[in-house]
Amino acid sequence: MITVFDDAQRAHDPQFFLSSGARKPCPEQPARVDALLGAVRRMGGAVVQAPDAGLGPILAVHPQRYVTFLSGIYERWTRIEGASAEVIPNVHPASRSDGYPLSAVGQAGFHMTDTSCPISGETWGAAYASAQTAIHAADLVLGGAVAAYALCRPPGHHAFAELAGGFCYLNNSGIAAQRLTDAGRKVAILDVDLHHGNGTQGMFYARGDVLTVSLHAHPERFYPFFWGYADEIGEGTGLGANLNLPLPRGTGDAGFLAALAEAIEKVQAWGADTLVLALGLDAFEGDPFAGLAVSTQGFAAIGRAVAAMRLPTVIVQEGGYLCPQLGDNLEAVLQAW
Amino acid sequence: MITVFDDAQRAHDPQFFLSSGARKPCPEQPARVDALLGAVRRMGGAVVQAPDAGLGPILAVHPQRYVTFLSGIYERWTRIEGASAEVIPNVHPASRSDGYPLSAVGQAGFHMTDTSCPISGETWGAAYASAQTAIHAADLVLGGAVAAYALCRPPGHHAFAELAGGFCYLNNSGIAAQRLTDAGRKVAILDVDLHHGNGTQGMFYARGDVLTVSLHAHPERFYPFFWGYADEIGEGTGLGANLNLPLPRGTGDAGFLAALAEAIEKVQAWGADTLVLALGLDAFEGDPFAGLAVSTQGFAAIGRAVAAMRLPTVIVQEGGYLCPQLGDNLEAVLQAW
Repeated sequence: MITVFDDAQRAHDPQFFLSSGARKPCPEQPARVDALLGAVRRMGGAVVQAPDAGLGPILAVHPQRYVTFLSGIYERWTRIEGASAEVIPNVHPASRSDGYPLSAVGQAGFHMTDTSCPISGETWGAAYASAQTAIHAADLVLGGAVAAYALCRPPGHHAFAELAGGFCYLNNSGIAAQRLTDAGRKVAILDVDLHHGNGTQGMFYARGDVLTVSLHAHPERFYPFFWGYADEIGEGTGLGANLNLPLPRGTGDAGFLAALAEAIEKVQAWGADTLVLALGLDAFEGDPFAGLAVSTQGFAAIGRAVAAMRLPTVIVQEGGYLCPQLGDNLEAVLQAW
Repeated sequence: MITVFDDAQRAHDPQFFLSSGARKPCPEQPARVDALLGAVRRMGGAVVQAPDAGLGPILAVHPQRYVTFLSGIYERWTRIEGASAEVIPNVHPASRSDGYPLSAVGQAGFHMTDTSCPISGETWGAAYASAQTAIHAADLVLGGAVAAYALCRPPGHHAFAELAGGFCYLNNSGIAAQRLTDAGRKVAILDVDLHHGNGTQGMFYARGDVLTVSLHAHPERFYPFFWGYADEIGEGTGLGANLNLPLPRGTGDAGFLAALAEAIEKVQAWGADTLVLALGLDAFEGDPFAGLAVSTQGFAAIGRAVAAMRLPTVIVQEGGYLCPQLGDNLEAVLQAW
């Protein structure tokens, strides 16, 4: 298994976010990279850096005004008297069909759904490197690799076309899927992160050419709250091309693997010829988010089940937070290839 | 001029809000009441307390699930480990057509557009009293009063049918307008607050039976950012029944009064037989929000221009923040009646 990684991703070091209204240290820390990279190195595969494919593949799914916002907002924010050190939104539209202001504070609220995506001077560079990492992994699979692992950070699956949220800025899995689609592949995105892949779903919701499937803790009492319900099945030409499998809090290996079997059946019935595996590791029983209870052996079984589809697969790192087994869980998944 | 007031409104004492991402003391303080009530008492009119008209007139514009949220969320919030002392949202949907979660944190984000509407244990009672104050002022006008002043606090015009925001929880002006409409009046709401009356606009946007007109600092660089643009003219049967007159920052008496003349012309052409004046006093040149530059004499001229329409008028207090002239500016407006 080849791993794509870019050290520039470490520079993004978000300090705070609000959780239940209270300021807390941000758990999406650069140290996550060490745990994940350590596992990759233990496995002995090649680690390569992505070449710079430019903005083109990013703009294929994210509009220009969003990219302009992400890349420029920090510098604008520093000119606001009394503003927070990181860009933190505090006022939002009711709907994204509302007006688009010129104000930096207003644009922050327009383009960010929550306070879990603070932007510092290093965020854009790291998010860009994370996207390039996913793009190159897609290119490796297009070039014939059976699978490639994109060690992406910050993660991407909560980022919509024009919205940051939940530690995510650019949707790496979505960018990879678009890259593959543009090359003629019929792509399914299978998201096994603890949290619903709301940004990915939103990005492809009205499109029939990319299948999106997500397993996750039930959103009625868990982030991202507003998406991830079973009745969200796509719209327009995308009707039937979105499948959500919300799981009760505390679901362990058996329940998760049963839902995964249903997800895989959907991917196969849909006729995908290439897979993007949005690989969160936070469904782990020891993850600080404590939403589901998948074991390390469970992750090995997840890897085996996905690999058994025998589809060319781009594995994109999503969530999974600091705990002693973070690297072990990655290794458990990847060893199936 | 009769004034309606309820001392229970003082109990709401919000502590903090986020401004440009940074925690700041909330400017919507109980002491505002003293300045406004002082002016009323100087003028010598009667001050009466509203009887309790119950939830009916509130539910005429606010759905039950929103009222349930507002009245119950604080108690639910106190049960969340590590939560903030006041209810402060930190995660929002992209649109209100997204899913409705069971989680208190999720519902807070669904029903609040920003962090300027913290909810404590005293908020619901004060907001309810504020709404009753507006309802009784409407009833006084229905009973034959030429005008009645509702000393409402917290204010209301940023509250949509299902959304709190900008220090507002229940839309007192909207509730009064509905009360009048239900009694057969043809009502226009004229909002002269510094900030666009986005909640009021939203509440009646698709309705042709209530005209909404707002003068305010241009939202492209000013709260509420996403609404208040001139091209928002209503929709469906409400097309043409919304008029926004955004003003450049720093606009003084002359510019404000010219826009007011246009607003009054619209109210008259539309054929309103009863007026709700959403009276913010924060367009004042000395208001801490420093958005426009209306003088105390300018407020007197505003009062005279509105009174000259000779429409039965419910005057509902909206914004206007602590500064030495807050009471003088209220007196300047009210003396026209």
